Amino acid sequence: MRNKIKGISASRGIAIASPYLLKSPDLSFEKREIDDEEKELKRFHGAINQSKVDLSSIQKKVSVEEAKIFDAHLLLLEDPELISAIETKIKDEKSNAEAALDEVMTTYIDMFEALDDEYLKERAADIKDIMKRIMAHLLNKWLPDLSLIKDEVIIVAKDLTPSETAQLDIRYVKGFVTDIGGKTSHSAIMARTMGIPAVVGTSLASEHIGENDLVIIDGEQGEVYINPDSETVKSYEKRRDEDKQHKETLKQYIDLPTELKDGHTVKLNANIGSPSDVKQALENGAEGIGLYRTEFLYMESHQAPTEEEQFEAYKTVLEQMGDRPVTVRTLDIGGDKELSYLQLPKEENPFLGLRAIRYTLKEKELFATQLRALLRASVYGTLKIMFPMISTIEEFIMAKNMLLAEKQKLVVEGISVSDNIDVGIMVETPSVIMLMEQFAQIADFFSIGTNDLTQYTFACDRMNENVSYLYQSHNPAIFTMIAKVAQAAKKYGKKVSVCGELASDDVAQAVLVGLGVEELSMNAPSILGSRFSLINHVKEDLEILALEVTKMKTQEELMKQVNKFLTQITV
Amino acid sequence: MRNKIKGISASRGIAIASPYLLKSPDLSFEKREIDDEEKELKRFHGAINQSKVDLSSIQKKVSVEEAKIFDAHLLLLEDPELISAIETKIKDEKSNAEAALDEVMTTYIDMFEALDDEYLKERAADIKDIMKRIMAHLLNKWLPDLSLIKDEVIIVAKDLTPSETAQLDIRYVKGFVTDIGGKTSHSAIMARTMGIPAVVGTSLASEHIGENDLVIIDGEQGEVYINPDSETVKSYEKRRDEDKQHKETLKQYIDLPTELKDGHTVKLNANIGSPSDVKQALENGAEGIGLYRTEFLYMESHQAPTEEEQFEAYKTVLEQMGDRPVTVRTLDIGGDKELSYLQLPKEENPFLGLRAIRYTLKEKELFATQLRALLRASVYGTLKIMFPMISTIEEFIMAKNMLLAEKQKLVVEGISVSDNIDVGIMVETPSVIMLMEQFAQIADFFSIGTNDLTQYTFACDRMNENVSYLYQSHNPAIFTMIAKVAQAAKKYGKKVSVCGELASDDVAQAVLVGLGVEELSMNAPSILGSRFSLINHVKEDLEILALEVTKMKTQEELMKQVNKFLTQITV
Repeated sequence: MRNKIKGISASRGIAIASPYLLKSPDLSFEKREIDDEEKELKRFHGAINQSKVDLSSIQKKVSVEEAKIFDAHLLLLEDPELISAIETKIKDEKSNAEAALDEVMTTYIDMFEALDDEYLKERAADIKDIMKRIMAHLLNKWLPDLSLIKDEVIIVAKDLTPSETAQLDIRYVKGFVTDIGGKTSHSAIMARTMGIPAVVGTSLASEHIGENDLVIIDGEQGEVYINPDSETVKSYEKRRDEDKQHKETLKQYIDLPTELKDGHTVKLNANIGSPSDVKQALENGAEGIGLYRTEFLYMESHQAPTEEEQFEAYKTVLEQMGDRPVTVRTLDIGGDKELSYLQLPKEENPFLGLRAIRYTLKEKELFATQLRALLRASVYGTLKIMFPMISTIEEFIMAKNMLLAEKQKLVVEGISVSDNIDVGIMVETPSVIMLMEQFAQIADFFSIGTNDLTQYTFACDRMNENVSYLYQSHNPAIFTMIAKVAQAAKKYGKKVSVCGELASDDVAQAVLVGLGVEELSMNAPSILGSRFSLINHVKEDLEILALEVTKMKTQEELMKQVNKFLTQITV
Repeated sequence: MRNKIKGISASRGIAIASPYLLKSPDLSFEKREIDDEEKELKRFHGAINQSKVDLSSIQKKVSVEEAKIFDAHLLLLEDPELISAIETKIKDEKSNAEAALDEVMTTYIDMFEALDDEYLKERAADIKDIMKRIMAHLLNKWLPDLSLIKDEVIIVAKDLTPSETAQLDIRYVKGFVTDIGGKTSHSAIMARTMGIPAVVGTSLASEHIGENDLVIIDGEQGEVYINPDSETVKSYEKRRDEDKQHKETLKQYIDLPTELKDGHTVKLNANIGSPSDVKQALENGAEGIGLYRTEFLYMESHQAPTEEEQFEAYKTVLEQMGDRPVTVRTLDIGGDKELSYLQLPKEENPFLGLRAIRYTLKEKELFATQLRALLRASVYGTLKIMFPMISTIEEFIMAKNMLLAEKQKLVVEGISVSDNIDVGIMVETPSVIMLMEQFAQIADFFSIGTNDLTQYTFACDRMNENVSYLYQSHNPAIFTMIAKVAQAAKKYGKKVSVCGELASDDVAQAVLVGLGVEELSMNAPSILGSRFSLINHVKEDLEILALEVTKMKTQEELMKQVNKFLTQITV
């Protein structure tokens, strides 16, 4: 029996518990020719309806953010193309409902799985989840209901579907291990949101773990221990307890500023995707919203959100944040993010194509609606607006002029609009770095999106495994760019924030603050830990460090030097 | 009747002549069922063979560079997949050869035409050209032989196929006008190589021009005049004569250095794609080869060129150039350039994918073969080697180490290798700009590829029409980048060249020389004109101009200012 299995770290933390071996019911069936098509169609629609009932009830148990996954599932159950393809098979080929369902949905699944895009590939998992549910109803089998678990366990499964993950009650389920899945699968994302450790993609964990084993998950290392020796158990129990202790300690910092030893402060903000994320941001001590990704608003339904719907969303966030500023990024669509109803062109290189501000400056109606909703909401808090993917001065001026024109119209209509809306840009293209002196004279603030910036700087698609070794977010080249942004902004009294993945990374944080970045925006769960480590620094030391590492040749050299510095701080 | 028609400028210059209205034979046919398949197959193969004979004879009349187009055509005629698809239609469907040919090839053509990629789209034109030729043979019709034209004419046609263009004798054919086609169609490229004016994509020229009309082509403006008034004729005759006069004047500069008024010199080099281009480079006064694109060597056949074949090609170029340096770029494949036998991965964003040095560092055998051929050829002239698409220091070190290792092996084998090979990099990714101080310490020289650099700086695919307005090669951001390269290179005593499209543009040239760029590499026909205009400048004035314009906000502002400066120089 294997003692230690390596997988992919999907969600951090330590869990020690007995396993709950999730067995899926046998959903095999025989293909057969039917004679009563009407009856078969009725059976099919019955299974669809029961599945809808299931999903609606699961949806009620989960957070608003997670609920969106099931909106997508429910939409699939109503997809006319899919439904009619299955109906046709039943009617024309006299196929039984099970075979018709399997054939049609397998085609869809294969199609999605064949795609190169990681995100779209994961859609296949959604379709499988639904197919399994409908099939179970057709065969009168019961899918296990994980919400009934009332013992402390670690779930062990070949795979966890989104609907299964949603049923987990974190009072009892301490973590999960799966054979398949990756970092971006829905169940991995949900584990991170729920804050339970998870290791996925272990290939064989479900075969090797027995009912009576003791299991440890190391979510940090992506490791699973089966019946470890008592020393290992002890050491992990210690780490688990320390983690818990550390979480408690961090809570003291919720309402404190992020003040370095010398009194210099850094603002730590949260990235959010919807109004329902504000609660978590505040609970984790966010001093503001540094990045409100509005595209999720546009992904929720089959049509663009109305001005009213958007207004309500923005107003809710602004009101809940009170005095704390809320930085809203206008619609960032295109690239790898599609919206069915917008019909973006098929492009050879979508990351170098019609996306974000390029798209909204073309679709002026769509853009004006968002700007009006933002302007109307502006009186309910401290709103800052930023445009994504700006690459020329003209684009910023055009976008800002549209904003001013909409403001003018609202004023004429007698609707009140705040006069203190800062208007800034995302720094994501190398051209902005080169034009920073010019931009600093006209934009109110800058937010550096390090993910895209890294991608364009090294001319490497961050989704493409062939060139992932070139996606070097910690390369001196990137910090040199950030230094240029900070210098020019300082000269003109403008603020600089970093809102890409770098912002929550401790190596990067030390350099960023040293370069003069004054705000960092990250996922809420990272805020308190960042505050806790930043307060140990002295600004001047970080400045010296930053100056030193930007002159280095490689990412490797830089990482080594900063890690050495951080170790010395901790000691 | 229309007097003036607007089209796309495909090749510069003025032509004034009577039209030669190119009429294609009627190639319509009836689909019918055949009874003697053997006979039909024989008819089909007969037409294929006659087409091969035609193409081989056309190929003999053209330059080596143009001949490659027909290599591609001949390969298509031997494509087993294509041929057997047609044979199957004849055998299994009892289709006559005409219908079988039409159906199979139309599928191919549609497939290529549906592609978004401009280059691949043009492949459809090649297939049409061949299909037309085979069809003519099947129907016993004659395709017009343009090589028989012995009067001074302007060809007017719906479209000119590559094989038709190749038949043009420039002693008689003064230019051509077509209804369809774009800047990158084969006939447009050939017009530029032949140096005759051409306007393409006029939509309707062939319908509006009659046998007895007088036609003027303005290749610069992309305009066609039909029976213009005598004043217009006079003014164009004057311009044509001036052009001719100017060409004569330029010839005096072939062996002169490009010396500014203050004695400062700039080196003007040629970009080439094969040994056969050296002649034209020398005739146009190239002081060296600034960019030898070796990928054409790899495109010529169905397999990679052997070390021996490459050695011969490099040796030929080095010997012909004598003392003048030859800068060879190692294989730059991927992105929009494919090679059937290399099986590059299908990528979501090929411009951000596995291309150039990224590919050759992975395919070490392929790379080593090229490096060995280069090293062996190095003793026959002044060789400089540069690596394309370098984005990190590690890549350069790896590539250079491979070169040194191959050199070591050759030395051990007793083969002589030059000890004075400069090893540099192409500057095409923004990361290199940020790491220039570091690169300047280890690379021998820098060659800026402004096309790719512009594309990555503005995060805009230069082939994508949706975002072409963002492809701003004259934006201050680009010149600021070039300034950084020039400054760091100067500090460490390294040379900087520009080899992208900017190098041959007069507005850009003034700024580039002002920024400290000492070498420009361009298509041979642009060299003398560039020399002629550069010698009117004073380095210090250009430095002041460059400093001024890099601070500007937009490309528009910059262009205006530099054009103003240039006008004052000319006056």
